[in-house]
Amino acid sequence: MSKLRLNITITLDGYVAGPNQSLSNPLGEGGERMHLWMYPLKAFGEIQGNPDGGKTGTDDDVLREAWFSDVGAYIMGRNMFGGGPGPWKGDEWKGWWGDNPPYHQPVFVLTHHAREPVPMEGGTTFFFVTDGIGSALRQAREAAGAKDILVMGGANVAQQYIAAGLLDEISLHVAPMFLGAGERLFDNLGGADPNLEQVRVVQGEGAAHLKYAVATRRS
Amino acid sequence: MSKLRLNITITLDGYVAGPNQSLSNPLGEGGERMHLWMYPLKAFGEIQGNPDGGKTGTDDDVLREAWFSDVGAYIMGRNMFGGGPGPWKGDEWKGWWGDNPPYHQPVFVLTHHAREPVPMEGGTTFFFVTDGIGSALRQAREAAGAKDILVMGGANVAQQYIAAGLLDEISLHVAPMFLGAGERLFDNLGGADPNLEQVRVVQGEGAAHLKYAVATRRS
Repeated sequence: MSKLRLNITITLDGYVAGPNQSLSNPLGEGGERMHLWMYPLKAFGEIQGNPDGGKTGTDDDVLREAWFSDVGAYIMGRNMFGGGPGPWKGDEWKGWWGDNPPYHQPVFVLTHHAREPVPMEGGTTFFFVTDGIGSALRQAREAAGAKDILVMGGANVAQQYIAAGLLDEISLHVAPMFLGAGERLFDNLGGADPNLEQVRVVQGEGAAHLKYAVATRRS
Repeated sequence: MSKLRLNITITLDGYVAGPNQSLSNPLGEGGERMHLWMYPLKAFGEIQGNPDGGKTGTDDDVLREAWFSDVGAYIMGRNMFGGGPGPWKGDEWKGWWGDNPPYHQPVFVLTHHAREPVPMEGGTTFFFVTDGIGSALRQAREAAGAKDILVMGGANVAQQYIAAGLLDEISLHVAPMFLGAGERLFDNLGGADPNLEQVRVVQGEGAAHLKYAVATRRS
Protein backbone atom coordinates (compact mmCIF):
# COMPACT_ATOMS: atom_id res chain seq x y z
CA MET A 1 0.00 0.00 0.00
CA SER A 2 1.40 3.36 -1.05
CA LYS A 3 2.49 5.55 1.87
CA LEU A 4 2.81 9.30 2.25
CA ARG A 5 6.21 9.83 3.89
CA LEU A 6 7.87 12.92 5.34
CA ASN A 7 11.66 13.05 5.19
CA ILE A 8 13.33 16.10 6.70
CA THR A 9 16.37 17.32 8.65
CA ILE A 10 15.59 19.03 11.95
CA THR A 11 17.74 20.66 14.62
CA LEU A 12 17.69 19.37 18.17
CA ASP A 13 15.54 22.36 19.08
CA GLY A 14 13.03 21.54 16.37
CA TYR A 15 13.78 23.89 13.48
CA VAL A 16 13.85 22.94 9.79
CA ALA A 17 14.90 26.40 8.57
CA GLY A 18 16.47 29.49 10.10
CA PRO A 19 14.95 32.96 10.24
CA ASN A 20 14.90 35.41 7.30
CA GLN A 21 14.77 32.94 4.44
CA SER A 22 15.61 34.57 1.11
CA LEU A 23 16.50 33.73 -2.46
CA SER A 24 20.20 33.95 -1.60
CA ASN A 25 19.70 32.12 1.70
CA PRO A 26 16.87 29.64 1.08
CA LEU A 27 17.31 27.79 4.37
CA GLY A 28 17.44 30.99 6.42
CA GLU A 29 20.21 32.23 8.68
CA GLY A 30 22.14 29.30 10.07
CA GLY A 31 20.00 26.82 8.20
CA GLU A 32 22.75 25.45 5.95
CA ARG A 33 24.58 24.11 8.99
CA MET A 34 21.92 21.60 9.92
CA HIS A 35 22.52 19.76 6.65
CA LEU A 36 26.27 19.30 7.21
CA TRP A 37 25.65 15.63 8.15
CA MET A 38 24.41 15.07 4.59
CA TYR A 39 26.86 16.91 2.34
CA PRO A 40 29.83 14.49 2.58
CA LEU A 41 27.71 11.41 1.81
CA LYS A 42 27.93 9.31 -1.32
CA ALA A 43 24.13 9.32 -1.65
CA PHE A 44 24.11 13.12 -1.48
CA GLY A 45 26.76 13.24 -4.20
CA GLU A 46 24.53 11.08 -6.37
CA ILE A 47 21.61 13.39 -5.63
CA GLN A 48 23.76 16.30 -6.78
CA GLY A 49 24.93 14.51 -9.92
CA ASN A 50 28.38 13.62 -8.56
CA PRO A 51 28.21 9.86 -8.28
CA ASP A 52 31.92 9.35 -7.58
CA GLY A 53 33.33 9.39 -4.07
CA GLY A 54 31.62 10.47 -0.88
CA LYS A 55 31.29 8.77 2.46
CA THR A 56 29.43 5.53 2.97
CA GLY A 57 28.14 4.30 6.33
CA THR A 58 24.99 4.58 8.40
CA ASP A 59 24.08 8.15 7.47
CA ASP A 60 24.55 7.27 3.82
CA ASP A 61 22.37 4.17 4.11
CA VAL A 62 19.62 6.11 5.85
CA LEU A 63 19.67 9.01 3.38
CA ARG A 64 19.62 6.61 0.43
CA GLU A 65 16.63 4.74 1.82
CA ALA A 66 14.76 7.88 2.88
CA TRP A 67 15.22 9.65 -0.42
CA PHE A 68 15.09 6.88 -3.01
CA SER A 69 13.51 3.64 -1.84
CA ASP A 70 10.09 2.93 -3.35
CA VAL A 71 9.39 6.58 -4.11
CA GLY A 72 7.11 7.23 -7.08
CA ALA A 73 6.40 10.95 -6.64
CA TYR A 74 7.52 13.94 -4.58
CA ILE A 75 5.62 16.85 -3.03
CA MET A 76 7.27 20.10 -1.97
CA GLY A 77 6.39 23.68 -1.13
CA ARG A 78 7.02 26.64 -3.37
CA ASN A 79 9.76 27.90 -1.11
CA MET A 80 11.68 24.66 -1.38
CA PHE A 81 11.37 24.71 -5.17
CA GLY A 82 12.56 28.31 -5.05
CA GLY A 83 12.47 31.14 -7.53
CA GLY A 84 11.26 33.74 -5.06
CA PRO A 85 7.72 34.55 -3.91
CA GLY A 86 4.86 35.79 -6.07
CA PRO A 87 3.91 35.09 -9.70
CA TRP A 88 6.38 33.11 -11.79
CA LYS A 89 8.64 35.20 -13.99
CA GLY A 90 8.15 33.18 -17.16
CA ASP A 91 9.79 29.79 -17.39
CA GLU A 92 13.17 30.94 -16.15
CA TRP A 93 13.33 29.24 -12.73
CA LYS A 94 13.47 25.44 -12.88
CA GLY A 95 14.55 24.61 -9.34
CA TRP A 96 17.90 24.48 -7.60
CA TRP A 97 19.05 21.21 -9.13
CA GLY A 98 20.21 21.91 -12.70
CA ASP A 99 18.99 20.25 -15.91
CA ASN A 100 18.83 16.74 -14.43
CA PRO A 101 17.24 17.00 -10.97
CA PRO A 102 17.75 14.13 -8.53
CA TYR A 103 14.07 13.13 -8.42
CA HIS A 104 13.60 11.20 -11.67
CA GLN A 105 9.87 11.11 -10.92
CA PRO A 106 7.00 13.60 -10.98
CA VAL A 107 7.43 16.40 -8.43
CA PHE A 108 4.31 18.30 -7.32
CA VAL A 109 5.04 21.86 -6.21
CA LEU A 110 2.43 23.55 -4.03
CA THR A 111 2.05 27.18 -5.05
CA HIS A 112 -0.52 29.96 -5.28
CA HIS A 113 0.56 30.72 -8.84
CA ALA A 114 -0.39 28.53 -11.78
CA ARG A 115 2.27 27.39 -14.21
CA GLU A 116 2.55 24.81 -16.98
CA PRO A 117 4.44 21.58 -16.13
CA VAL A 118 8.21 21.73 -16.63
CA PRO A 119 9.76 18.50 -17.92
CA MET A 120 13.44 18.07 -17.10
CA GLU A 121 16.11 15.57 -18.07
CA GLY A 122 16.24 12.20 -16.34
CA GLY A 123 12.53 11.68 -15.75
CA THR A 124 11.77 14.58 -13.42
CA THR A 125 8.75 16.72 -14.29
CA PHE A 126 7.69 19.61 -12.09
CA PHE A 127 3.92 20.00 -11.81
CA PHE A 128 2.48 23.10 -10.15
CA VAL A 129 -0.56 22.61 -7.92
CA THR A 130 -2.64 25.61 -6.92
CA ASP A 131 -5.61 23.91 -5.24
CA GLY A 132 -4.04 22.65 -2.04
CA ILE A 133 -2.49 19.64 -0.36
CA GLY A 134 -5.39 17.27 -1.02
CA SER A 135 -5.18 17.87 -4.74
CA ALA A 136 -1.40 17.51 -4.73
CA LEU A 137 -1.74 14.19 -2.91
CA ARG A 138 -4.36 12.89 -5.34
CA GLN A 139 -2.20 13.77 -8.32
CA ALA A 140 0.89 12.31 -6.67
CA ARG A 141 -0.94 9.06 -5.84
CA GLU A 142 -2.02 8.71 -9.42
CA ALA A 143 1.54 9.28 -10.63
CA ALA A 144 3.16 7.02 -8.03
CA GLY A 145 0.89 4.00 -8.39
CA ALA A 146 1.95 1.39 -5.83
CA LYS A 147 5.04 3.37 -4.85
CA ASP A 148 5.30 5.83 -1.98
CA ILE A 149 5.08 9.61 -2.07
CA LEU A 150 7.72 11.69 -0.34
CA VAL A 151 6.92 15.07 1.23
CA MET A 152 10.18 17.01 1.10
CA GLY A 153 9.09 20.11 3.07
CA GLY A 154 9.24 22.87 3.99
CA ALA A 155 7.68 23.21 7.39
CA ASN A 156 4.42 24.70 6.18
CA VAL A 157 3.64 21.87 3.76
CA ALA A 158 4.61 19.22 6.30
CA GLN A 159 2.41 20.87 8.94
CA GLN A 160 -0.57 20.93 6.60
CA TYR A 161 -0.25 17.20 5.90
CA ILE A 162 0.15 16.37 9.60
CA ALA A 163 -2.78 18.58 10.62
CA ALA A 164 -4.96 16.94 7.95
CA GLY A 165 -4.05 13.45 9.20
CA LEU A 166 -2.72 12.42 5.80
CA LEU A 167 0.89 11.45 6.64
CA ASP A 168 1.72 7.77 7.12
CA GLU A 169 5.37 8.04 8.12
CA ILE A 170 7.72 10.66 9.57
CA SER A 171 11.49 10.32 9.10
CA LEU A 172 13.57 12.87 10.97
CA HIS A 173 17.30 13.42 10.75
CA VAL A 174 18.19 15.24 13.97
CA ALA A 175 21.22 17.50 13.60
CA PRO A 176 23.21 18.06 16.82
CA MET A 177 22.77 21.83 17.06
CA PHE A 178 20.46 24.57 18.22
CA LEU A 179 19.15 27.14 15.79
CA GLY A 180 17.23 29.20 18.35
CA ALA A 181 14.90 30.78 15.78
CA GLY A 182 13.27 30.12 12.42
CA GLU A 183 10.64 27.65 11.25
CA ARG A 184 9.77 24.86 13.64
CA LEU A 185 8.55 21.66 12.03
CA PHE A 186 6.04 20.74 14.73
CA ASP A 187 4.15 24.01 15.06
CA ASN A 188 0.69 24.87 13.77
CA LEU A 189 -0.53 21.28 13.92
CA GLY A 190 -4.08 22.42 14.68
CA GLY A 191 -4.41 20.13 17.69
CA ALA A 192 -3.52 17.03 15.68
CA ASP A 193 -2.73 14.18 18.06
CA PRO A 194 -1.87 11.22 15.85
CA ASN A 195 -0.90 7.86 17.28
CA LEU A 196 2.83 7.81 16.61
CA GLU A 197 4.56 4.46 16.66
CA GLN A 198 8.34 4.50 17.00
CA VAL A 199 9.55 2.38 14.08
CA ARG A 200 13.31 2.84 14.16
CA VAL A 201 16.00 4.83 15.94
CA VAL A 202 19.44 4.85 14.35
CA GLN A 203 22.71 6.42 15.42
CA GLY A 204 24.33 7.91 12.34
CA GLU A 205 27.79 9.43 12.18
CA GLY A 206 26.46 12.99 11.95
CA ALA A 207 22.79 12.82 12.92
CA ALA A 208 20.21 10.80 14.83
CA HIS A 209 17.62 9.18 12.59
CA LEU A 210 14.12 8.72 13.99
CA LYS A 211 11.31 7.06 12.08
CA TYR A 212 7.67 7.00 13.18
CA ALA A 213 4.57 5.39 11.72
CA VAL A 214 1.42 7.46 11.98
CA ALA A 215 -0.86 4.58 12.90
CA THR A 216 -4.22 6.10 13.63
CA ARG A 217 -5.52 9.62 14.11
CA ARG A 218 -7.03 10.80 17.33
CA SER A 219 -7.51 14.42 16.34
CA MET B 1 35.85 15.32 36.23
CA SER B 2 32.39 16.01 37.61
CA LYS B 3 29.79 16.79 34.94
CA LEU B 4 26.55 18.74 35.02
CA ARG B 5 24.03 16.52 33.25
CA LEU B 6 20.47 17.14 32.11
CA ASN B 7 18.14 14.14 32.01
CA ILE B 8 14.59 14.74 30.80
CA THR B 9 11.71 13.25 28.83
CA ILE B 10 10.56 15.28 25.85
CA THR B 11 7.80 14.84 23.27
CA LEU B 12 8.62 14.60 19.60
CA ASP B 13 7.41 18.18 19.23
CA GLY B 14 9.73 19.38 21.98
CA TYR B 15 7.59 19.73 25.10
CA VAL B 16 8.56 18.65 28.61
CA ALA B 17 5.23 19.63 30.20
CA GLY B 18 1.72 20.34 28.99
CA PRO B 19 -0.22 23.59 29.40
CA ASN B 20 -1.96 24.64 32.64
CA GLN B 21 0.30 22.94 35.17
CA SER B 22 -1.27 22.78 38.61
CA LEU B 23 -0.87 21.08 41.96
CA SER B 24 -3.28 18.36 40.89
CA ASN B 25 -1.74 18.13 37.42
CA PRO B 26 1.96 18.91 37.89
CA LEU B 27 2.99 17.91 34.37
CA GLY B 28 0.20 19.94 32.76
CA GLU B 29 -2.58 18.70 30.49
CA GLY B 30 -1.44 15.63 28.59
CA GLY B 31 1.95 15.71 30.29
CA GLU B 32 1.59 12.40 32.13
CA ARG B 33 1.38 10.57 28.83
CA MET B 34 4.91 11.41 27.77
CA HIS B 35 6.26 9.41 30.72
CA LEU B 36 4.41 6.20 29.82
CA TRP B 37 7.65 4.72 28.46
CA MET B 38 9.07 4.93 32.01
CA TYR B 39 6.30 3.70 34.30
CA PRO B 40 6.50 -0.05 33.55
CA LEU B 41 10.29 -0.20 34.05
CA LYS B 42 12.08 -2.01 36.86
CA ALA B 43 14.31 1.03 37.44
CA PHE B 44 11.25 3.25 37.78
CA GLY B 45 9.77 0.83 40.31
CA GLU B 46 12.97 1.11 42.30
CA ILE B 47 12.76 4.90 42.09
CA GLN B 48 9.23 4.68 43.46
CA GLY B 49 10.20 2.30 46.24
CA ASN B 50 8.79 -0.81 44.53
CA PRO B 51 11.93 -2.80 43.76
CA ASP B 52 10.12 -6.00 42.80
CA GLY B 53 9.03 -6.68 39.23
CA GLY B 54 8.97 -4.25 36.35
CA LYS B 55 10.27 -4.53 32.82
CA THR B 56 13.96 -4.83 32.02
CA GLY B 57 15.47 -4.05 28.63
CA THR B 58 16.95 -1.08 26.82
CA ASP B 59 14.66 1.60 28.28
CA ASP B 60 15.36 0.22 31.74
CA ASP B 61 19.12 0.24 31.20
CA VAL B 62 19.03 3.82 29.91
CA LEU B 63 16.84 5.11 32.73
CA ARG B 64 18.99 3.39 35.33
CA GLU B 65 22.17 4.91 33.91
CA ALA B 66 20.66 8.36 33.42
CA TRP B 67 19.17 8.59 36.87
CA PHE B 68 21.66 6.77 39.09
CA SER B 69 25.13 6.31 37.62
CA ASP B 70 27.80 8.46 39.23
CA VAL B 71 25.33 11.03 40.50
CA GLY B 72 26.33 12.86 43.69
CA ALA B 73 23.72 15.63 43.77
CA TYR B 74 20.51 16.71 42.05
CA ILE B 75 19.16 20.11 41.04
CA MET B 76 15.50 20.79 40.29
CA GLY B 77 13.08 23.69 40.00
CA ARG B 78 10.46 24.59 42.56
CA ASN B 79 7.69 23.40 40.32
CA MET B 80 9.20 19.94 40.03
CA PHE B 81 9.59 19.74 43.80
CA GLY B 82 5.98 20.84 44.08
CA GLY B 83 3.89 22.23 46.89
CA GLY B 84 2.33 25.03 44.86
CA PRO B 85 3.69 28.50 44.08
CA GLY B 86 4.51 31.25 46.57
CA PRO B 87 5.88 31.12 50.13
CA TRP B 88 6.16 27.71 51.78
CA LYS B 89 3.31 26.80 54.10
CA GLY B 90 5.45 25.62 57.00
CA ASP B 91 7.24 22.32 56.64
CA GLU B 92 4.25 20.43 55.34
CA TRP B 93 5.28 19.77 51.74
CA LYS B 94 8.28 17.47 51.37
CA GLY B 95 8.09 16.59 47.69
CA TRP B 96 6.11 14.01 45.73
CA TRP B 97 8.18 11.01 46.76
CA GLY B 98 7.18 10.02 50.29
CA ASP B 99 9.46 9.63 53.32
CA ASN B 100 12.27 7.93 51.41
CA PRO B 101 12.76 9.81 48.12
CA PRO B 102 14.61 8.06 45.29
CA TYR B 103 17.58 10.47 45.30
CA HIS B 104 19.65 9.32 48.32
CA GLN B 105 21.84 12.38 47.80
CA PRO B 106 21.52 16.12 48.37
CA VAL B 107 18.84 17.73 46.19
CA PHE B 108 19.06 21.47 45.53
CA VAL B 109 15.68 23.06 44.85
CA LEU B 110 15.69 26.43 43.09
CA THR B 111 13.04 28.71 44.61
CA HIS B 112 12.33 32.34 45.37
CA HIS B 113 11.31 31.44 48.93
CA ALA B 114 13.85 30.55 51.61
CA ARG B 115 13.38 27.43 53.70
CA GLU B 116 15.50 25.36 56.07
CA PRO B 117 16.93 22.11 54.68
CA VAL B 118 14.63 19.08 54.92
CA PRO B 119 16.43 15.81 55.69
CA MET B 120 14.57 12.70 54.58
CA GLU B 121 15.07 8.98 55.03
CA GLY B 122 17.59 7.16 52.87
CA GLY B 123 20.15 9.93 52.48
CA THR B 124 18.11 12.52 50.60
CA THR B 125 18.20 16.08 51.93
CA PHE B 126 16.33 18.87 50.20
CA PHE B 127 18.21 22.18 50.23
CA PHE B 128 16.44 25.34 49.09
CA VAL B 129 18.46 27.78 47.01
CA THR B 130 17.19 31.33 46.58
CA ASP B 131 20.18 32.97 44.90
CA GLY B 132 20.06 31.39 41.48
CA ILE B 133 21.48 28.62 39.30
CA GLY B 134 25.15 29.52 39.85
CA SER B 135 24.79 29.21 43.60
CA ALA B 136 22.86 25.94 43.28
CA LEU B 137 25.63 24.56 41.06
CA ARG B 138 28.39 25.60 43.47
CA GLN B 139 26.60 23.97 46.39
CA ALA B 140 25.85 20.85 44.37
CA ARG B 141 29.50 20.56 43.24
CA GLU B 142 30.65 20.78 46.81
CA ALA B 143 28.18 18.08 47.83
CA ALA B 144 28.87 15.81 44.84
CA GLY B 145 32.67 15.85 44.98
CA ALA B 146 33.98 13.82 42.03
CA LYS B 147 30.51 12.59 41.09
CA ASP B 148 28.17 14.18 38.58
CA ILE B 149 25.27 16.53 39.18
CA LEU B 150 21.93 15.82 37.57
CA VAL B 151 19.57 18.61 36.50
CA MET B 152 16.09 17.07 36.66
CA GLY B 153 14.12 20.00 35.20
CA GLY B 154 11.71 21.59 34.63
CA ALA B 155 12.12 23.48 31.41
CA ASN B 156 12.92 26.81 33.03
CA VAL B 157 15.82 25.50 35.12
CA ALA B 158 17.23 23.52 32.18
CA GLN B 159 17.00 26.60 29.95
CA GLN B 160 18.85 28.73 32.47
CA TYR B 161 21.72 26.25 32.65
CA ILE B 162 21.91 25.92 28.86
CA ALA B 163 21.78 29.69 28.34
CA ALA B 164 24.56 30.15 30.91
CA GLY B 165 26.76 27.59 29.15
CA LEU B 166 27.02 25.47 32.29
CA LEU B 167 25.65 22.12 31.10
CA ASP B 168 28.09 19.38 30.08
CA GLU B 169 25.67 16.72 28.88
CA ILE B 170 22.09 16.52 27.62
CA SER B 171 20.17 13.21 27.79
CA LEU B 172 16.78 13.25 26.14
CA HIS B 173 14.17 10.54 26.17
CA VAL B 174 11.96 11.29 23.17
CA ALA B 175 8.38 10.08 23.63
CA PRO B 176 6.54 9.21 20.38
CA MET B 177 3.74 11.76 20.67
CA PHE B 178 2.79 15.36 20.04
CA LEU B 179 1.65 17.58 22.87
CA GLY B 180 0.96 20.66 20.76
CA ALA B 181 1.21 23.11 23.66
CA GLY B 182 2.94 23.60 26.99
CA GLU B 183 6.55 24.16 28.02
CA ARG B 184 9.16 23.56 25.33
CA LEU B 185 12.55 22.49 26.59
CA PHE B 186 14.57 24.35 23.97
CA ASP B 187 13.02 27.80 24.19
CA ASN B 188 14.44 30.92 25.83
CA LEU B 189 18.05 29.86 25.26
CA GLY B 190 19.14 33.47 24.91
CA GLY B 191 20.99 32.83 21.66
CA ALA B 192 23.09 30.06 23.20
CA ASP B 193 24.79 28.10 20.42
CA PRO B 194 26.83 25.41 22.16
CA ASN B 195 28.86 22.88 20.24
CA LEU B 196 26.76 19.74 20.64
CA GLU B 197 28.46 16.43 20.01
CA GLN B 198 26.19 13.45 19.43
CA VAL B 199 27.39 10.87 21.96
CA ARG B 200 24.81 8.11 21.70
CA VAL B 201 21.52 7.31 20.01
CA VAL B 202 19.59 4.34 21.34
CA GLN B 203 16.33 2.75 20.28
CA GLY B 204 14.37 1.89 23.41
CA GLU B 205 11.14 -0.04 23.53
CA GLY B 206 9.07 3.04 24.31
CA ALA B 207 11.28 6.04 23.58
CA ALA B 208 14.31 7.20 21.60
CA HIS B 209 17.28 8.06 23.79
CA LEU B 210 19.61 10.82 22.58
CA LYS B 211 22.73 11.87 24.44
CA TYR B 212 24.82 14.93 23.59
CA ALA B 213 28.03 16.31 25.03
CA VAL B 214 28.18 20.08 25.26
CA ALA B 215 31.78 20.37 24.11
CA THR B 216 32.48 24.07 23.87
CA ARG B 217 30.37 27.16 23.95
CA ARG B 218 30.13 29.47 21.00
CA SER B 219 27.55 31.83 22.42
